[in-house]
Amino acid sequence: MGKRIYNFNAGPAALPLTALKEIQEEILDFKGSGMSVLEVSHRSKWFDDVINEAIERTRRLLNLGDDFRVLFVQGGASLQFCMIPMNLSLDARPVDYINTGTWSTKAIKEAKIQGKDVREIGSSEERNFAYIPKDFQVDEDAAYLHFTSNNTIKGTQWAKFPHSGDIPLVCDMSSDIMSRAFDVRPFGLIYAGAQKNIGPSGTAMVIIREDMLERVPDYLPTMLKYTTFAEKGSMFNTPACFVIYTINLVLKWLEETIGGMENMERINREKGAIIYDFIDQSDFYVGTADKDSRSLMNVTFRLPDEELEKKFVEEALKEGLGGLKGHRSVGGCRASIYNATGLEAVRALVEFMGEFQRKQG
Amino acid sequence: MGKRIYNFNAGPAALPLTALKEIQEEILDFKGSGMSVLEVSHRSKWFDDVINEAIERTRRLLNLGDDFRVLFVQGGASLQFCMIPMNLSLDARPVDYINTGTWSTKAIKEAKIQGKDVREIGSSEERNFAYIPKDFQVDEDAAYLHFTSNNTIKGTQWAKFPHSGDIPLVCDMSSDIMSRAFDVRPFGLIYAGAQKNIGPSGTAMVIIREDMLERVPDYLPTMLKYTTFAEKGSMFNTPACFVIYTINLVLKWLEETIGGMENMERINREKGAIIYDFIDQSDFYVGTADKDSRSLMNVTFRLPDEELEKKFVEEALKEGLGGLKGHRSVGGCRASIYNATGLEAVRALVEFMGEFQRKQG
Repeated sequence: MGKRIYNFNAGPAALPLTALKEIQEEILDFKGSGMSVLEVSHRSKWFDDVINEAIERTRRLLNLGDDFRVLFVQGGASLQFCMIPMNLSLDARPVDYINTGTWSTKAIKEAKIQGKDVREIGSSEERNFAYIPKDFQVDEDAAYLHFTSNNTIKGTQWAKFPHSGDIPLVCDMSSDIMSRAFDVRPFGLIYAGAQKNIGPSGTAMVIIREDMLERVPDYLPTMLKYTTFAEKGSMFNTPACFVIYTINLVLKWLEETIGGMENMERINREKGAIIYDFIDQSDFYVGTADKDSRSLMNVTFRLPDEELEKKFVEEALKEGLGGLKGHRSVGGCRASIYNATGLEAVRALVEFMGEFQRKQG
Repeated sequence: MGKRIYNFNAGPAALPLTALKEIQEEILDFKGSGMSVLEVSHRSKWFDDVINEAIERTRRLLNLGDDFRVLFVQGGASLQFCMIPMNLSLDARPVDYINTGTWSTKAIKEAKIQGKDVREIGSSEERNFAYIPKDFQVDEDAAYLHFTSNNTIKGTQWAKFPHSGDIPLVCDMSSDIMSRAFDVRPFGLIYAGAQKNIGPSGTAMVIIREDMLERVPDYLPTMLKYTTFAEKGSMFNTPACFVIYTINLVLKWLEETIGGMENMERINREKGAIIYDFIDQSDFYVGTADKDSRSLMNVTFRLPDEELEKKFVEEALKEGLGGLKGHRSVGGCRASIYNATGLEAVRALVEFMGEFQRKQG
């Protein structure tokens, strides 16, 4: 085995080494079954234990009440963009969206494709999504308010979630789920592609409040109804077993090694402080997001010119720091520091940034 | 590591041991990237190589012409049941289906949910799907003819595919894709959940002829259009990277160890002959499918009574033969002998069946 790098990928992203080692140990013989975890039936006791454990860990970590269900739906957050208006929009009611970047824009587009009464009640598009909007008015009769809690590409994050009164919040938490403690009760639905904070790519986690299930129209295709997944425990058909298995190992690490959401949040705040404090004292690196809207998951920054940015990314990789290129749509640099990218990695990055700057004279 | 069992699971099912060992070796450091295959970006050179190799291997193994595209779509065959009529039905044209069991029935149901003009032109339901229908008339103006090439639950398989003239065939090959050589040209679309013959659960492989892409209506949600997957090389959003990676390892085994489809078919025929010949000379075990409709992938059989069937499954497991219980909807016994379940496993099974019979006196 070669040396493992510090992984700052935006997703798929770093996973806890303990989880990877468990996979390695169990890949030929899962729990004495004589089969790989890739080969056991999804209807077996072995897999039942896996999916139930993943659900129970999610319940404990997020402090979910009995009125929340935890589902696993393939197709990533992108399929959720269309399932949400399809399932939750209620006839003739407006659906409110706040636009904070690429992913919100896609979510809005999918609601419009379905001919819903989409209202973009807030947006930071006029400043290239460099901040989280503060002034917006939720429609009194909105079916839901949709927002994206963390914006991987623009490097912004909601520090406090929007208030919407009785209107249920619907949130794409793909890039910051399980990164901090929060109150789930105002949320009708939370969804997250697994491949950033909780596992490999191949499934979305959907946390849905039971009253939302009553909204699901009967006429929808079976595989596009949240009720199908809720009634069958995400096993109407064969789920993405290995992905769920790995999610469970990541959640185990969160509970047993990290010690839960409060600890994880504290570590993430410390990581963010180290790198943002460094950027703020530098006149070489410039953060792209407004200070009050900065993401603790994706730190986006620029160097004096694009040539230097390219050199920065290349030299970082040589030093064992990978994934620092900004998203192809915006350029610049980006350090994604999800849960599994630890303090050590962030310290190594800041050290490299200092050295790189000095070398440029 | 404990002893690996002979795995007769219906899916998720046995995978080639060579593929599992490659996963084990690469799980902490993929191709010198310093990252797990679970952690590399889907936009990286590393993953590009994986998905392109999987597609090229599929092209070679199935002898696909340039007019066929190979796609990876999450959601299993069950999501395909709804995507097919949604994408390919053409306004006001009938869609023809042949009903050979549980999975065909589900495919038909999803087309009906969408209000399509569904015509069930053939069915073996009146004899509990124990055979493949021979007499049916394809509608001249049908948009497609859908059938299920192998029926995992009922243990039947199309020995020769239906003739439909110019009407494109659409086929659920979930349980026998890559098990035999065949001519793809009459097929407009072939789909297969990966978890039986080509990989773990978590993606469907979709092989689509380019003229079918012209049928896709503009108004569909982005993630439900085949054109989205075709135009973006199955990477409009993050695909199920690990599942595709494992599929590529299984296809590599098919090409390099087995030596292609003709060899695989020969081995599968030999496996089928061993077990069916044994059943036919026995008055203790009784096959449930008509002889001319028997599946080479799922061998379904009964014992004299349910008590003995239960005992058979339990004692087999003690002897290291797993997964022999019939589907919960039909009972009895079932040996799924997909590609990765080799001759040795089938010989061990037949030996056990002989011993078990003798012990009952």
